[in-house]
Amino acid sequence: MTNQRNSRVKETLNLNSILAPIQSELQLVETRLRAAVHVDYAPLGDVFESLIESGGKRIRPALAILATKFGPADPDKASTLAITVELVHAATLIHDDLIDKSPVRRGSPTINSRWSGTATVLAGDYLLARAADIAANIDDFRVMHIFARTLMAICEGEIRQDFGGMHWPPNRAEYYRHIDSKTGSLFVASTEGGAVLAGLSETEIGALETYGRNLGRAFQIVDDILDFTSDEQQLGKPVGSDLRQGTYTLPVFYFMEQDARGANISAQMNVIDDLVDTIRRSPAIDASKAEARATVQNAQDALAIFPDTPYRAALIDLANYVVERTL
Amino acid sequence: MTNQRNSRVKETLNLNSILAPIQSELQLVETRLRAAVHVDYAPLGDVFESLIESGGKRIRPALAILATKFGPADPDKASTLAITVELVHAATLIHDDLIDKSPVRRGSPTINSRWSGTATVLAGDYLLARAADIAANIDDFRVMHIFARTLMAICEGEIRQDFGGMHWPPNRAEYYRHIDSKTGSLFVASTEGGAVLAGLSETEIGALETYGRNLGRAFQIVDDILDFTSDEQQLGKPVGSDLRQGTYTLPVFYFMEQDARGANISAQMNVIDDLVDTIRRSPAIDASKAEARATVQNAQDALAIFPDTPYRAALIDLANYVVERTL
Repeated sequence: MTNQRNSRVKETLNLNSILAPIQSELQLVETRLRAAVHVDYAPLGDVFESLIESGGKRIRPALAILATKFGPADPDKASTLAITVELVHAATLIHDDLIDKSPVRRGSPTINSRWSGTATVLAGDYLLARAADIAANIDDFRVMHIFARTLMAICEGEIRQDFGGMHWPPNRAEYYRHIDSKTGSLFVASTEGGAVLAGLSETEIGALETYGRNLGRAFQIVDDILDFTSDEQQLGKPVGSDLRQGTYTLPVFYFMEQDARGANISAQMNVIDDLVDTIRRSPAIDASKAEARATVQNAQDALAIFPDTPYRAALIDLANYVVERTL
Repeated sequence: MTNQRNSRVKETLNLNSILAPIQSELQLVETRLRAAVHVDYAPLGDVFESLIESGGKRIRPALAILATKFGPADPDKASTLAITVELVHAATLIHDDLIDKSPVRRGSPTINSRWSGTATVLAGDYLLARAADIAANIDDFRVMHIFARTLMAICEGEIRQDFGGMHWPPNRAEYYRHIDSKTGSLFVASTEGGAVLAGLSETEIGALETYGRNLGRAFQIVDDILDFTSDEQQLGKPVGSDLRQGTYTLPVFYFMEQDARGANISAQMNVIDDLVDTIRRSPAIDASKAEARATVQNAQDALAIFPDTPYRAALIDLANYVVERTL
């Protein structure tokens, strides 16, 4: 499948064209998302609508819809799953911004920049409860378990991060575990949930689960690379924010392994601008990117058991998009 | 039913004897609760086990089990519902203690006294996710909706309180709304969920819902009275804590209505010890207690449609216990 991937890389940078096979489904998801976050209590309703309307790539809903296309899924349940995973994603953004003390998200002030910490977390919780209420409409107990376990994985990951403090995670194994909880779990929920709704075999569900886990991991690695290589305007926060907050990511681990200056990295936090710039210009970036590409390849390889349909092609292209994106 | 209630009041102060008809079910709930909070990640597992093992009256599990006894419910699902509502209750205790900055709960240091605010809320969230995972085993989409909506009601109530600040709620109507969200919603989830599992008619489900709503309201009114009339050792916090934190409860509203000194209550917050003592000795306490008794009467009246069984008797006695308890 490597050639297939390479031949497609060039064409896959436009997300809209990649997702053309499910365009009408995604439009319905947008409409239903807006209805889903309507809350009579104005302060809550306002922040949710602003968060949903400010956009986002809707990668998780797309994954959910595409996964349902591998079998005869009820379109209404597919759409409900897609909304659920996007609401969970939105809730985790609210919690992440609080943990990271981010002032801005998608060009708007974050909830944590305007509300107390408690109210901010509760707003995220409310959205999770709303997601649970919507997920219950799917009326599939396996999907409910996937949903609940995803929440547990995300919470446990966030608590480990909060407990970790500075210079965390301590090693690469903990880093992978962290990004699998933080990002991978919801990608898996999207593809595994879709596969369950499509009535696929356990082998097929497992393949879409493997795809989702690797794609989520690659997505987060690329996010962590962009935190070094992008600029402040695109990021909406200073370059190297993770490291500035004492959080180590894959480029940092490669830098520590590859560069003599990486040996005493914790001693260099007082010259953080220099350190971020050094890592940004180091081979650690290319090494991280190569790892993201290899991870995406694992994701794509897992799809080999399925026939070549426009939906499988979309998942393959989406994986290329995820790793080559610059934003 | 008033005479029936009065004749029973004296005998109903022992919770164990009231719940004797479901003693074996409640023992199973205890065992399953301990298993439910086992988490491999030690910091989380330790705080959950300590919270569950420190006890509590288990009123919500008892309500859930008793409600299932009005029809042919699957005992395993009944027990699962009971565990779910107690886990949600435990999660809200974690969040409440954070909001109230309580240092001690059931004789042990609270999670918020040892962890960061973020980690504390996430611990509560993890427990909610665990509850959702367990609730999914019931495999009843109406019960899942009840569960999710209860969470939304609790979150919205907590956010309103957090936004309310000092001298909140502003009036008695908001006070009822607040205690219905904070306490009543989970009592309703227990009785309504049990009624659904028992396969009852909508009228019967509605009766148990009415019972749960009124019982929850009475329970919280009594809690708010005890905050004035109990002592610091029993409360584990100073007498009048709610008022000290600027939260108004039913005795305060009665005091404002009945006593000339209540007209400018917000101006007296600087002599808070005197104010708490004045309210504690005022007729506002008896007026609040009378209202709790009337509310419990409404709860009991709703059960008139059911035949006189040991389970109905237990619900009636439990309501008397709730309003007459001193702890």
